[in-house]
Amino acid sequence: MRIITLTTDFGLGDGYAGVLKGVIWKIAPQVQIADISHGISPQNVLEGALTLGRAAVYFPEGTIHVGVVDPGVGTARRAIAARLGAQYFVGPDNGLFTVLLEQAERKHEDIAVIHLDQPQFWLPSISHVFHGRDIFAPSAAHLALGVPLESLGTPIQDPQRLELPVPKRLAGSWQGQILSIDHFGNLSTNLDKDLLDSLKNVKIHYKKWTIDGLVGAFGDGEPGQFVALIDSSNHLSLNVVNGNAAEQFNARIGDKVEIYG
Amino acid sequence: MRIITLTTDFGLGDGYAGVLKGVIWKIAPQVQIADISHGISPQNVLEGALTLGRAAVYFPEGTIHVGVVDPGVGTARRAIAARLGAQYFVGPDNGLFTVLLEQAERKHEDIAVIHLDQPQFWLPSISHVFHGRDIFAPSAAHLALGVPLESLGTPIQDPQRLELPVPKRLAGSWQGQILSIDHFGNLSTNLDKDLLDSLKNVKIHYKKWTIDGLVGAFGDGEPGQFVALIDSSNHLSLNVVNGNAAEQFNARIGDKVEIYG
Amino acid sequence: MRIITLTTDFGLGDGYAGVLKGVIWKIAPQVQIADISHGISPQNVLEGALTLGRAAVYFPEGTIHVGVVDPGVGTARRAIAARLGAQYFVGPDNGLFTVLLEQAERKHEDIAVIHLDQPQFWLPSISHVFHGRDIFAPSAAHLALGVPLESLGTPIQDPQRLELPVPKRLAGSWQGQILSIDHFGNLSTNLDKDLLDSLKNVKIHYKKWTIDGLVGAFGDGEPGQFVALIDSSNHLSLNVVNGNAAEQFNARIGDKVEIYG
Repeated sequence: MRIITLTTDFGLGDGYAGVLKGVIWKIAPQVQIADISHGISPQNVLEGALTLGRAAVYFPEGTIHVGVVDPGVGTARRAIAARLGAQYFVGPDNGLFTVLLEQAERKHEDIAVIHLDQPQFWLPSISHVFHGRDIFAPSAAHLALGVPLESLGTPIQDPQRLELPVPKRLAGSWQGQILSIDHFGNLSTNLDKDLLDSLKNVKIHYKKWTIDGLVGAFGDGEPGQFVALIDSSNHLSLNVVNGNAAEQFNARIGDKVEIYG
Repeated sequence: MRIITLTTDFGLGDGYAGVLKGVIWKIAPQVQIADISHGISPQNVLEGALTLGRAAVYFPEGTIHVGVVDPGVGTARRAIAARLGAQYFVGPDNGLFTVLLEQAERKHEDIAVIHLDQPQFWLPSISHVFHGRDIFAPSAAHLALGVPLESLGTPIQDPQRLELPVPKRLAGSWQGQILSIDHFGNLSTNLDKDLLDSLKNVKIHYKKWTIDGLVGAFGDGEPGQFVALIDSSNHLSLNVVNGNAAEQFNARIGDKVEIYG
Repeated sequence: MRIITLTTDFGLGDGYAGVLKGVIWKIAPQVQIADISHGISPQNVLEGALTLGRAAVYFPEGTIHVGVVDPGVGTARRAIAARLGAQYFVGPDNGLFTVLLEQAERKHEDIAVIHLDQPQFWLPSISHVFHGRDIFAPSAAHLALGVPLESLGTPIQDPQRLELPVPKRLAGSWQGQILSIDHFGNLSTNLDKDLLDSLKNVKIHYKKWTIDGLVGAFGDGEPGQFVALIDSSNHLSLNVVNGNAAEQFNARIGDKVEIYG
């Protein structure tokens, strides 16, 4: 049983995500389909890339991840597909799979990227405005049926990449930033566990607040207390116990966070 | 593998959509279930009909579409099911499948509509307030198991229909209206591609703005530019490049849009 | 085909719910997965318990319900699983399955609860912040594969329970309260059908309004009329015909509702 996942900025109201499932099952009736998210902020490719980067690794080998955050649909940007180790990606060539690509590179996995240029694997009629439906979903379904990646298009070596923000070394500290804010208002940064582990008696500075050391879990502290911990993606996260840190501190993606130790 | 789709105004918070899946799988464990939308505005039958009309055609033959936007549940309105060409519909008789019915008529497909009046295909206990759970989901599941449509009820010839707004011919122009506004704030009208194609050098007038000609894709223009294109359902859509036209122009369903050419 | 359901406070934007599906299908590729809700208010265990209590009974025998509303994740609270009659529950030991447990007790069903303390059925690496992914989802998947409940942990007799609000007998009336407010703004109370049936000519008092008798269905009344009926979970619900009672009356969970008769 092959799995196809969907990560888009479509929202859930208009039926666009459902349409992708119809297209997929028309071609490959046996696949399982999992929604990763349809709540990526409209046109926010970085947010989509980070969400895919956190989720994909938990899926079985052979899973095909369809990503559609695609402000350039119908313009010159290419449609691509990739094999990254044992997983697959299908979507626009705009950096949406940067995190997955870098993960595969770090693990020295086999990587193949192709330009989707074989219309026989698409819907018969192609719009300029909905390649998720017309190109990506049918291409993913054909992959799930066993069509080799290489049959779907022409190999390329230069997929687009996003520049992911990395921590900066300052005198006596590291400066990172808030990379994502989740549904609970937790503030996840680009400061990872290895970096934190290299510091003794870590202190975290955010806006005018300083947090002294890490706690182990969300509930380790008094309700309303501002705490820091290593989150489920192994990065430093700032949280309010039983509360919403994003609202309480008016936090924004890109806010600076410094760590000392 | 049969597919059942769900289109409702239930929202996703209360578990109502999940309950439909439980009911379906209890009767027909092998079916695949796709959510088309649970975000139809409460009691907005027209919005549900348009959403179903855009999505259903992308599903395989034999798919059963359950629609539940049902302000009249428990009153005299009938419960119905229909075969429209190769697809099926189950839901309230309030016009929710008007668009699907008209599509089937335009294509001269076989059409059969029945009044669901055979309680042996429903849940044992029927509420007056949740026919989605008690009547429509179990009826759809029985269809998926292979029960013939005709066994589920009595043929009828007069299903309710909504009056769908059609463009008006004015002196030197066509006046249409905004029919739906999607998650991206794109404004989709009832002016279709054939009508647009009949005009040379088309100009679009909306409120105090005029757009000169169509672009091919959302990204064809400067960020923030107000553009018009043929959308994924082959209708004229008004859009802001990388922006939200609905918010920017305070657009409403029913707003008039004129085209000249 | 086994079914696993998911009820969480994760929201749908961050991909957390999708990750649970990846984890489950990696272990048990054949299961069907139904979302009951990912829209439980953050950390609101009672809301999760009521949602599960309304939905679970509609799923087939053998269904495994994963619940993750878990403010105490990573602290001393236990991870548990339970067999309640013919259904299963996996989640934190914080009262989240109180309603299911009480339903099983009322029906004199077999009940077994275990403390999940066998890490060989979890993910290899366990975070302190995401037991849904690391413990509950893999435990549910192993149950679905046929691992006996008793192999997953150690029997316990004292699962945590929530105190569910019950109606109070007053002089000449019963005082209940609003227990949940749904997507439509309907106000569902803890006053059940049996209690209502025991009263003749029932009158309902809420804030400064009095409703005289019950209607049968949402549409039984003039648009805008404030009505009362027995809802789909067999409890008294207060509703505005074609409207939103919660908004119109600024209703809150816990608001008192009195019935006379």
